[in-house]
Amino acid sequence: MSILVVGSIAIDTVETPSGSVQDSMGGSALYFSAAASFFSPVNLVGIVGNDFDFSRIEFLKTRGVDLEGLAVEEGQTFRWGGRYHRNMNNRDTLFTYLNVFKNFQPVIPEHYRDAKLIFLANIDPDLQLDVLDQVEQPELTVLDTMNFWISGKRDSLERLIRKVHVLILNDEELFELTNIPNIFESAQHLLQKGPRALVIKKGEHGAVLVTADQYFLAPAYPLPKVVDPTGAGDSFAGGFLGYLATCPEITDHQFRKAIIYGTVTASFTVEDFSFNRLRDITRDAIDRRVEELREMVRF
Amino acid sequence: MSILVVGSIAIDTVETPSGSVQDSMGGSALYFSAAASFFSPVNLVGIVGNDFDFSRIEFLKTRGVDLEGLAVEEGQTFRWGGRYHRNMNNRDTLFTYLNVFKNFQPVIPEHYRDAKLIFLANIDPDLQLDVLDQVEQPELTVLDTMNFWISGKRDSLERLIRKVHVLILNDEELFELTNIPNIFESAQHLLQKGPRALVIKKGEHGAVLVTADQYFLAPAYPLPKVVDPTGAGDSFAGGFLGYLATCPEITDHQFRKAIIYGTVTASFTVEDFSFNRLRDITRDAIDRRVEELREMVRF
Repeated sequence: MSILVVGSIAIDTVETPSGSVQDSMGGSALYFSAAASFFSPVNLVGIVGNDFDFSRIEFLKTRGVDLEGLAVEEGQTFRWGGRYHRNMNNRDTLFTYLNVFKNFQPVIPEHYRDAKLIFLANIDPDLQLDVLDQVEQPELTVLDTMNFWISGKRDSLERLIRKVHVLILNDEELFELTNIPNIFESAQHLLQKGPRALVIKKGEHGAVLVTADQYFLAPAYPLPKVVDPTGAGDSFAGGFLGYLATCPEITDHQFRKAIIYGTVTASFTVEDFSFNRLRDITRDAIDRRVEELREMVRF
Repeated sequence: MSILVVGSIAIDTVETPSGSVQDSMGGSALYFSAAASFFSPVNLVGIVGNDFDFSRIEFLKTRGVDLEGLAVEEGQTFRWGGRYHRNMNNRDTLFTYLNVFKNFQPVIPEHYRDAKLIFLANIDPDLQLDVLDQVEQPELTVLDTMNFWISGKRDSLERLIRKVHVLILNDEELFELTNIPNIFESAQHLLQKGPRALVIKKGEHGAVLVTADQYFLAPAYPLPKVVDPTGAGDSFAGGFLGYLATCPEITDHQFRKAIIYGTVTASFTVEDFSFNRLRDITRDAIDRRVEELREMVRF
């Protein structure tokens, strides 16, 4: 089953304690696609400028990522620059040039509209609502967002939360959204608005799945060295939805396994800059880490 | 097998977002003993003033905690006051009156000296070294400490780390001790100094066991409401060592189960002030949460 993703394509300049990289491939839709493509075909909707060098994402096509929904506009591609602090948990944005992304109006190609699985990567909630209007009956819609929209477009975001099946967010976003500083109390509060499940990402501390009647506590894959955390969240979402796309039925138990696949896929992303690691590994490498994690939580 | 614990007995005044309590029972040795006593007999070494009301810890005796090593000195018992912030992760110390604890010189009673399991709760590292000199061949010594000693008595602490089998510390203490901001890299560095295992506590994010050849990733028990985090760390240590005291052999797999028992025991502690919850529950309640956790990590 193929997945529809709508999000950003960016050219990133990143400095971390482990090194730096200039004008590398980034953006939520690319990280998501690189991750999900280990499991399933992906249909990508996004926008780039006419400066964009398609040869740099050629490998995505060979992995089954359909780029027909990628609009090319006169102008420059979205550019982002950031610098991570020593602990890798905090970062400063050095610059954000939206460029053609400023005028992004997602148009879902006709043959993407019956998508069963949809990932609404972090963009303006009004555009995310617009995407939902364009698609037919999706089986599972998964929403990502960020603090910027929680404070800036709360009404649209609240409408979205009532429409989607799964909300993926980090603990800080959850607290900002509910103003309740305990993740379990906060998650229960949010679930009452409609989503079937919340997936709360805690970075190096793992992730938590909360549904009406269960918690699943997932560890992060232990990494003695992180090179660049950029794209970890979107890679997590890619592994999560990619795995679910392979399941004949999406049960709560499959959600659990999907979170582990998301965790492991993201663990590769952060071991190098951009999607360098995701380009080089195979599905086998992912499966091995999944089994290692299973062993690391056994008691 | 009984456990020897050397630590503080305190009278606490605590304010949290959930309420407050004045002159309640606290201190590392009491929390540890209350927790460990679900599993095993405990021999306690500590000091109180002649103002101390022994009736308030009477229940510990009925649970098999031997108080012969509890010295009573002319003067006031150690008093501590603290106020927790809204997120429960940070606290301000309002006052610390060491009182008789200032002159604490642990004397291990003769019939405690062949202890097989020893918990060196957080006190001056020089006193912890002195305790190790007084005991015979312990099978397992477990060390706790705090930032205050890491910066103030690093040499003594380094000597201790070379002598103990297990170091229990939180992630911040680990970073301060090694100056390496990644817990896995940091832990490997510390293991080379001699301990068989490190147990890194991450509060609401669980705990990690690191030995030379494995990681064990333990979640925290999910609590929608925390009333008072005071004593969580010492209760964790109590459940950990208490469980190990019941094992004929202390294998790495038993370490894993011990961490889960520590986690669960601490989860009860923080549901009420002081050791109110630990006084009221039974071993059965602990075992039930252990099984719940097992279910919550399954995938």
